[in-house]
Parts: sequence; structure tokens; C-alpha cells
Amino acid sequence: MTFSIHGLGVTRGIAIGRAVLVASSRVDVAHYFIEPDQVAGEIDRVRRGRNAVIKEIQRLQQSVEQLGPKEAPPELKALLDVHLMLLQDEEIIGGVKHWVRERLYNAEWALTSQLEVMARQFDEMEDEYLRERKADLEQITEKVLRAMQEEMQGGSASLYVPTQALSPSLHAAKPGDADGADKTALVLVAHELSPADMLQFKQGVFTGFITDVGGKTSHTAIVARSMDIPAVVGARTASQLVRQDDWIIIDGNAGVVIVDPSPIILAEYQYKQREHELARSRLARLRDTPAITLDGEPVELLANIEMPEDAAHALRAGAQGVGLFRSEFLFMGRQGHLPDEQEQYQAYRRAVEGMNGLPVTIRTVDVGADKPMDSNAQEGKHLNPALGLRAIRWSLADPAMFLTQLRAILRAAAHGPVKMLVPMLAHLSEIRQTLSLLEQARTELHREGLPQGAVQVGAMIEIPAAALMLKTFLRYFDYLSIGTNDLIQYTLAIDRADESVAHLYDPLHPAVLRLVADTIAEGRAQGKEVSVCGEMAGDVGMTRLLLGLGLRSFSMHPAQILAVKQEVLRADAAKIAPWAREVLESETPAALMGN
Amino acid sequence: MTFSIHGLGVTRGIAIGRAVLVASSRVDVAHYFIEPDQVAGEIDRVRRGRNAVIKEIQRLQQSVEQLGPKEAPPELKALLDVHLMLLQDEEIIGGVKHWVRERLYNAEWALTSQLEVMARQFDEMEDEYLRERKADLEQITEKVLRAMQEEMQGGSASLYVPTQALSPSLHAAKPGDADGADKTALVLVAHELSPADMLQFKQGVFTGFITDVGGKTSHTAIVARSMDIPAVVGARTASQLVRQDDWIIIDGNAGVVIVDPSPIILAEYQYKQREHELARSRLARLRDTPAITLDGEPVELLANIEMPEDAAHALRAGAQGVGLFRSEFLFMGRQGHLPDEQEQYQAYRRAVEGMNGLPVTIRTVDVGADKPMDSNAQEGKHLNPALGLRAIRWSLADPAMFLTQLRAILRAAAHGPVKMLVPMLAHLSEIRQTLSLLEQARTELHREGLPQGAVQVGAMIEIPAAALMLKTFLRYFDYLSIGTNDLIQYTLAIDRADESVAHLYDPLHPAVLRLVADTIAEGRAQGKEVSVCGEMAGDVGMTRLLLGLGLRSFSMHPAQILAVKQEVLRADAAKIAPWAREVLESETPAALMGN
Repeated sequence: MTFSIHGLGVTRGIAIGRAVLVASSRVDVAHYFIEPDQVAGEIDRVRRGRNAVIKEIQRLQQSVEQLGPKEAPPELKALLDVHLMLLQDEEIIGGVKHWVRERLYNAEWALTSQLEVMARQFDEMEDEYLRERKADLEQITEKVLRAMQEEMQGGSASLYVPTQALSPSLHAAKPGDADGADKTALVLVAHELSPADMLQFKQGVFTGFITDVGGKTSHTAIVARSMDIPAVVGARTASQLVRQDDWIIIDGNAGVVIVDPSPIILAEYQYKQREHELARSRLARLRDTPAITLDGEPVELLANIEMPEDAAHALRAGAQGVGLFRSEFLFMGRQGHLPDEQEQYQAYRRAVEGMNGLPVTIRTVDVGADKPMDSNAQEGKHLNPALGLRAIRWSLADPAMFLTQLRAILRAAAHGPVKMLVPMLAHLSEIRQTLSLLEQARTELHREGLPQGAVQVGAMIEIPAAALMLKTFLRYFDYLSIGTNDLIQYTLAIDRADESVAHLYDPLHPAVLRLVADTIAEGRAQGKEVSVCGEMAGDVGMTRLLLGLGLRSFSMHPAQILAVKQEVLRADAAKIAPWAREVLESETPAALMGN
Repeated sequence: MTFSIHGLGVTRGIAIGRAVLVASSRVDVAHYFIEPDQVAGEIDRVRRGRNAVIKEIQRLQQSVEQLGPKEAPPELKALLDVHLMLLQDEEIIGGVKHWVRERLYNAEWALTSQLEVMARQFDEMEDEYLRERKADLEQITEKVLRAMQEEMQGGSASLYVPTQALSPSLHAAKPGDADGADKTALVLVAHELSPADMLQFKQGVFTGFITDVGGKTSHTAIVARSMDIPAVVGARTASQLVRQDDWIIIDGNAGVVIVDPSPIILAEYQYKQREHELARSRLARLRDTPAITLDGEPVELLANIEMPEDAAHALRAGAQGVGLFRSEFLFMGRQGHLPDEQEQYQAYRRAVEGMNGLPVTIRTVDVGADKPMDSNAQEGKHLNPALGLRAIRWSLADPAMFLTQLRAILRAAAHGPVKMLVPMLAHLSEIRQTLSLLEQARTELHREGLPQGAVQVGAMIEIPAAALMLKTFLRYFDYLSIGTNDLIQYTLAIDRADESVAHLYDPLHPAVLRLVADTIAEGRAQGKEVSVCGEMAGDVGMTRLLLGLGLRSFSMHPAQILAVKQEVLRADAAKIAPWAREVLESETPAALMGN
């Protein structure tokens, strides 16, 4: 039966394929397809994990028995008995066999999929108290997952299985398909995807993503955009409504998911999909056209990238450089194990070399808030993570770690033009600490005789306080880059990932425009470059206004560059300026934007 | 053994007394002392609650048995057996008897105290997995608490037991004291206190509060200040380290808790306590002195109050009116049941009449963020509540409810001078909706022939966007009031309740000072009153600066008024102004504040 689910579309375009469900789990597990000859091994891994947990619980029972009733309540042993029963239930291994054999899911994916099936029995119970008993099942599953992880890591504690090790099978294998059509496109459906999952799927086989949670700036959304794959986030209960293998249409433009479409609807969306491809190929002709306004003003169009490999994507889109290389990918899904200098240096260097002499702006790490390092860390330790320890605050809290990143950036600069960008600065003390650590990194490298390059240093303007002390920022930095997403969030005190207030998140709010315009104007007045690297830069509806306010450098997702270039080519900067000033001074700027 | 715990001091002064522990619970229970003749009845209430849950679980077991193994896993029945064992454990009732008989705790308090004792057995286990089994004990206790609540409410769903019904016993009774000294002061120690608890304890017997969690602007802190009772919040594990009946010293100035002090330390703090009293009585002589600067500028010193009864407190402190009457107390601890017009009208009227003709500024409700209506609601539904649906956003999301408050305020204004204040405005659309609903309220009352008074309408300036569109705000409102706590939070993107970044929360940040100064200046230029009602107004270290920036209206906690008045009496506004401008334009204002 056809039905549709509404959420937030994060990447334009249409995706059509069959649903692959990823069950959520408190343990950060890898999801990938295995080769047919690995089936027996994967089933065995689950069995070994289960047996390890059974042994552990039996051991616990013995130690509990040795305690007197004063130290250990007698009910505890009975509880452990129930957990043993749950573990020994043949439904677990039976189900795992199904998922591994029929779907070629890896062991962890199979186990969490089976947990989901069994948990549904509980979910369907009328009594809330009975439903809550599910927790025991989840806990023992979690314990089995951890036992399996420990085994894979040779008993050692917490190294994450690197994506790279798994990607060949991801490319090669596909799940069994009832129709026998081996090339069916696949759409991933999940409650939530961890940053690690997204990095994994980045090299994967999926043509679209759907998640129950997440906003337009969630990590899932950012990665989906960077892959230029249609995605809908914030789709509420999609992961419960959609079933394995359902046909799915994702309309990224409208933020709609259509499940089990009728042939007529399917045909319509296949038409739309072709139309989208056509428009895209038409824009592609602008690739080598210089971005110059009608009145001859050159405009710099840069790319935001996520990983070194995205540099190729940026070049294909005609980017004149990278305006924002997010370094988070190096820090995520690593269970607290941070990347060392060599690993960072190599990654930055790959991006620099990938851009063939065009400048690459590396932003120091911005974790925290909606970008925690591990999905396990998301369990709300802080009431308002967006107002907490993130980005430069997090870096300065661990100077040795930050120094490692600064050294890696300086060393990468020996291989091509590099700029450095510091996120979330708001205090003079932070500016001074940052620049002093950078100086220390330069001195150290010099003393050690390691090659380094000259690096321009810029600051993100994304906290109102920063936009209100521009003179200070311009005294200390070579250039500024406006992060409009956060700047809007803090200026309006609106978390746009929060559905109850998302309608108040307004890039055209007069206060936001004033801070953006002030930053552009102050930079021009002092002869220093100002760029916009937030979503505003890639929004074709904003291009003319930003040009009119004097912006000459835009950094955006590569997929947006050609459409923005088209706007630039059509614009007469001198003629737009008075209109832009009018918009800026209006109490209701949106009303003037029709023009 | 003496030891000390460090946290955030929220009210100045010293408290000395014996510890009374309040165990935390997921169910919002009342805590109060009973009369000795109620002992048997309270123990019986727990027994009845337990028996009700036993019956319910037995009923569930039967219905589970009737399901096949397909619908209900066989382990479920075993799990329920364990829960029955836990419930029938005589340690529960035995412990409850102790707490009720020896401490005169009410039934719910006794049950949660006993849960805490039993849960400690689990906490002390070495194995994390065993420790987690505690959850079952917590769940059945929760179920018993709910059964007891339902019984008290005659089976109906969710009405909260009103504080007033219990307060007589709170005043009358005290816990048994081993020393037989019946007048021992008591210090409350809890992991966290719900708004409902705080309202309860407001009329209570405690001389100090200690909570594990909470920041300077948490509800617990605000209420403690309003009671002018020394308190330390954010004391981490205090509720686990302190034991029932421990002697406790709270040093609110230093944010330190001293447990089980030696006689020498005790004597020293008793001396400090007397000194504090002395300084307070010296200031009291300024009560009737008009607040006028040395160069003859009159300054308005107003009170922030929490409840109508605080009006007396405000008058005693010499307040010239109420600059901020928070209406939240009417909305909290009510389990979703909102106050009707009559109840609100009576409460506002009591405050207005209590102020004897001095003006009362009623702020429309500001719930959300760190001020959820019920403690149950705190379970992180939103990732960043401070950037979510709160204050006016929450009011406008339910116009009928907001209209009720507006009508009540207008009606209260028939009994004395009333001003209305709207929190968290940032958008023109919100301003228009608010004023249009106010107009509707006026029209309705007029049509119904109900008396109403003229009300000046003001807006809080507490979001950067508001401070950046002052012209718009001044066009629509009669006056402005700067809420510095939130304004600092959003301008700097710092949640000061978050320990990891609290050191970056800086009232003297140049961006903050600029927004505050702009607001004061723009108001003066347009001849409209601007007041400050955030914590900055009550901070004697800020008085001269704010006077120098042109502020002539301060609203603060009553306990701070006399100290601020002393600063005003010593200041020469004209002479300070150039210095204030210098501070404002400095990159490092704090350095200039020594003067």
C-alpha cells in the first residue's frame, strides 16, 4: 500500500530503490555486506560472542553466590538466570542465520536486525510495563556486540575497525534480491546514523538515505550533501514504518519519502529523475566559464569538502579552491583514539595535492554539539551542547592535541597553498591562545628541520560576539569566513534541528543580515578577504543579495557551485547594491526578495 | 571525618545544620514531614501501593500466559517472577517503617529513601553489568510510587498534590533528632530538586540547600536566592557523600560545603555567620534613603520576585516597585494541568495589592530550557532546550492559554499599577502576534464588562537579534528590560550551567557590553525607559559601569537592593560616564574595572 512520509530534504534530486534497514544500537557497530564465502564465519562470530557472554554471566552468578545476602540481594541471581534464558533462546541465532545468509549482512548488523525483530514483540504489547522489559533483551545484545568487538580487536580495548578495511566488500557485494535483479538500487533507512556509519556508507552502494531524526545541519545531512545523494532526515518514524525491501522513492527537493509506490507514481518520479539529470548536465557546460558579474566583478567560488577524496569532486565542479575543508572526519568514530600528526598530515596533504595548486582552507576540528566524536557520546551529558565545549573551545582544552593538528596543517602547507581557519572563536583570550600555539608549532617544526609552508590564518565568524568585535578579529587575522548556520542559530537563539522552533530559523532576519553585512563591509574597509562558507553561500536565492552586500567569495558544497555561478553570471553587482541596502534596512527583508 | 565539597554558591551567607537527604526519583514525588499520629497510615499507604503493583504483575503474568510463545517470549514470565520477588522482599517495608517512624518522612519520601539504600548494594558491585541490574529495582519502586499517587488522587490520572495542603505539617513537624535537640537547623541535600519540591520547601524548615547538579541560573538557584537562603548547587556527588544527620556548613560566598566539621572549624563559621548578619543589619539603615547619585541623578531600584508573597520581602528591602515578577510558579509542578484565569488573576492581584500602589511588572510565562514545567519533562527531549520552544515561543504556540494569562494580567491591573513584560522576543512576527492577542484580550474583557487596568507593555532584550533591532522594538513597546543572563548566554554561545565552558561566560565581554550599552542609549534617545533585570543589575561590581552607561533603572533580588543602593549613593554619574565609555571601547574591559 502506497504511503508517504514527510521530513526535511537535504539534497536535491530523486532516488528510487529498495529499502535496507539499519537497526539502531547503543553500541557503535559497523554495517557492511559480506562475501558469500564469509557467511559461516560471520554466524560463528555471533555464536562465539554469545558464548563469551554466557560464560561471563555464569561466572558472575558464582561470585554473587559467594557474597552473603547482605552484599548481594537474592533476587540478583534470579535476574541473571533470566538473562541466561534470553541468551540461550534459539530465536537469536536462528534469526542471525537468516540475516547473514539471505542478506549478506555482517555479524553485528545481523544481530542488531534480529534484536529489532524480537524487540517488536515487546513493542506490540499493550501494557507499558511489559514493553519496558525489552530493556533486558537490549542489554544482553549490547553485551554480545561488545564481546564481538573485543574479539575482533584481539582482546584490546577500543580501536575502531577502520572503514577502509571493509570498503572492498561494500563495493562488491549486494544483498540478495527477491526479484533476482542484481543491480537494484538500495535506499538506506535508519533511526539515526552515526558519523562512523556515514563515513562507511560514503564509499557504499546506497542511492539515498532516510533517517528518523536529524536536521538540515546534522552530520547525516552534511555527509549526504557531500555525496550529492538525495536524503530525507527528520522523517520521524520512517524506520518503523518502512519494511525491509519496500520500494522507496526519495524526493530530496520536497523532503518526501514515498513507500511502495504505484506504477503510475513510479513512472512520474522516474521522469522527474531524468529531468533533474538533464538540468544538471545543462549546468555542467558552465564549468569552465569564469565567474564574473555582468559588470565585470570577478567572484571566487570555492568548495566545502569533508574528506581529501572530495577534492576531485571540487575540481570537477569547477571550484577555484577549497574554502572549507572540515577536518572532523579524522576525529570521528574512533572511540576516543585521536589521529596522530602523521595521519593528519597525510590526509591534509592528499587534499592539498588533490587540488593541483589551488588553495585549500583547512578548518581546525569542530567536534561537539551535533558533531560528537562517537555516537556513544551523544547520550546527553550536556543540556545544551550547542552552547558547550566544541570547536576551538574543545581544541584549547587539550593544547597538546591541538598542537598536533596545527603542526600537521603547517607541514601539509609545504605541498601547496594552505589557509587555516579557526571555528567558534568569541573571546580575545581564545584568539591569543590559538595564535600562540600556532607560533609554537612553527618554532617546533623549524627546530626539528621539518618542512612547513606559509599559512594564512582566518577566523570563522559564527558567534554573535565575534561579529560584534570585528575590529579585534581583523587586527589578528588575515581573513574572515562567515559560518552562517551557527551565526543564525545563536543570533536568533533557534536550534533549527528542533522541529518545534525550526519555523523561526530565518536567514533573512534583519539582525542576521546586519551581522553578515557588517562583517563583509568591515573586511572590505580594511582590505581583508571575507568569505561566506555557511549554507547561505550555496543558496541561489541568496546569491544576488550577498553580491549586493559586497561579498566576492562564496564557499559551498561542490554540487551547488554551478547553479550559483549561473546567478553570478546574470547579476550586475553595481545595480544590485542599492537594492541590497534597502533589503538590509527593511524590517521585513523577505518581502523585498522577490525581485 | 571532616571533608569539603566544592560547587557553585548561589546565595551569600553561611548556613549550619544537620543533613536531610532527599533521594531522587523519576516520579515527581512530594517530600514532607508527617505528624507522629500519621505514622501507621503512611506505612500502610506504602503497603497498599506495593500490593496493588503485586496484583497488577500477577494479572500481567496471566495475560502473558494466555499468549502463545510467538506473541510473548517465554522469558518474559520469568522476568515478571523476579520482579515479584523484588516487591515481596521484606527489606522494602522494613526500611520504609524505619524512615517513617524515626524520621517522620511521608510515605513517598520513605520509599525513595529506602530505594536509595537498597540501590547502594548494587552500586557497590564491581561489575558494571551487575550494577545495571539496579534498574529493575528502580522500575518497581517507580511503579509503587505511581500506584500510591493514583490512590491519593482517587484513581484519577495526574493532578498534583498542591503544596498548600501540606505546608502546615511542614512548619509543625521536624525529624527526630538523636541528640534530642528539637530546634536543630536542617540542611537539605539532594541530587536535584524539582521546581515542585522547591516551591514546597519554600515554606519549609530548611536553612540551606545543596544539590549535585544545577548552575547559577538553575531553578533551584533562583528559588534559593529568592528565599535568601545559602545554597550550593553543582556540588557533583554531594548527595552520595553526605549521610543522613551529618553536620553540614554551607558557605554560600565561597560555594563550599563542609561536612562533619571539627569544633574549631564550626566555631570559625559561626563567627562568620554572625559577621554576615552584622553587615546585613548595617545596610538595613539605608532602607528609606532615596537612591540618588552624588550629582543628584535619581535611580530606580526594583525587585525581582517569584511569588505574590515575595512582595512583602520587596517592600522590606526598600524596593520602589517590582521590575520582574516571574509568573512561572503558577505553571510549574502541575503535571500539564495549567492554571486557569481566575487562579492567575488572584495571584497577580495579590502581588499588586501586596506592593501598596507601587508598580508591578508581570513577565509572561518563561518555561522551557532549564525551567521545564515538570521535572519529568526534563528527560532530554530536545538537544538544545535553550535554543528551543520556551517563553514567548511557548506562549504563542498555544494562543488560548496565552490569552488566559493576558486577560488575568489586565484584570489584575484594575487593582494597582501593572506593567507587562514579554520574554524571548526576537522576530517581528512574534511582536505582532503578541500585541494582537493583547488587543483581543482587552476587547474581550471590555465586551464582558470585566474591570481591567491600563498596562504598559515592554519587551525583554535577551536574544542578540532583539538587541540588534532596537528601533523596531522601541516602535512597538513602551519600555525595554535587558535580561543579561540569557543575552550573555546567546551572544557568547556559552551555557554557564555547563562546567566545561562556564569560565568563558563573561558579563564583561566587549560584545555583551556593546549590546547592553546600545540598548540603554537607544532607549534614552527615544525617551523610553530601559531597565536591567538580569543578574548584572544586582552585582555591586557592575553598578558604577551601568550608571556610567546611562542606566537609571535596576531590578534585582530584594536581598541585593541595599548593597546596590550603597553603590549608587557613592557614585557621581557625570564623572563616571567618560570612564564607562572607555571600558565599553576597550578590548579588555575587565582590566579597566579595578577603578
